[in-house]
Amino acid sequence: MGGLVVRRATREDVPAIVALLTDDPLGAARETHGDHAAYLTAFDAIDADPAHELVVLEDEGEVIGTLQLTLLPGLSRHGALRAQIEAVRIASSRRGQGLGEGLFQWAIDESRRRGAVLVQLTTDASREGAQRFYERLGFVASHVGMKLPL
Amino acid sequence: MGGLVVRRATREDVPAIVALLTDDPLGAARETHGDHAAYLTAFDAIDADPAHELVVLEDEGEVIGTLQLTLLPGLSRHGALRAQIEAVRIASSRRGQGLGEGLFQWAIDESRRRGAVLVQLTTDASREGAQRFYERLGFVASHVGMKLPL
Repeated sequence: MGGLVVRRATREDVPAIVALLTDDPLGAARETHGDHAAYLTAFDAIDADPAHELVVLEDEGEVIGTLQLTLLPGLSRHGALRAQIEAVRIASSRRGQGLGEGLFQWAIDESRRRGAVLVQLTTDASREGAQRFYERLGFVASHVGMKLPL
Repeated sequence: MGGLVVRRATREDVPAIVALLTDDPLGAARETHGDHAAYLTAFDAIDADPAHELVVLEDEGEVIGTLQLTLLPGLSRHGALRAQIEAVRIASSRRGQGLGEGLFQWAIDESRRRGAVLVQLTTDASREGAQRFYERLGFVASHVGMKLPL
């Protein structure tokens, strides 16, 4: 990954992370530019709980990717610890350069280091490229992801 | 729901919950009877973190259902709090009696009470009946759920 670094996000990274979430066909419709208060409140909740690791991929001081890793204890599968990945983004100008693979390799290694026996994620069914990317990393599309808005 | 109660699980419920996890076509292959040490360790991790609520559905002192609700903070969707449901089971002898609807209504109400803006879950693609059940509750099958064993 050359001079690239995966590091824990700080409060100062929140505007850059929100910009990445927005720089996306689905994200553009549901994120806002401008007021970051709600995002900062959520950042503080994520940052306060060691179950979560919100990270950024940085290239020479520029934030070009992000994901959130969460460790989830459960009783299933002999009390297995699971790792879950959410909110994955690579800057649109930097896609197709293998940066996602590097960020995911960090996440998979970190999940293993923390004792998880599997990594799980869901991807919007319309993101066909994303699904192929995850399959290349070894993920199996065994489940249906369902959501209920409240 | 008559004399039915949804209540927080205790350590003493772990054997009954493991029995429910095992009483299932997929669970039978991956859970064990007998030694509960790993399940108790996982129970303690779940119970210690207020982000998780492991509950049982009880009918006159008998545990006949279970699910785990987890509240997940994230930056996406304006810093939205999500609720995630895992490890859902109703005793095989009690299915088809509307008990799952009652247990889910509790989970949906509790998710809303805690400030979640959506409830998410994944279901194994082979569980067609489960997917129809969730669709009746209003869940939309918008995502692909992917898993990577470590």
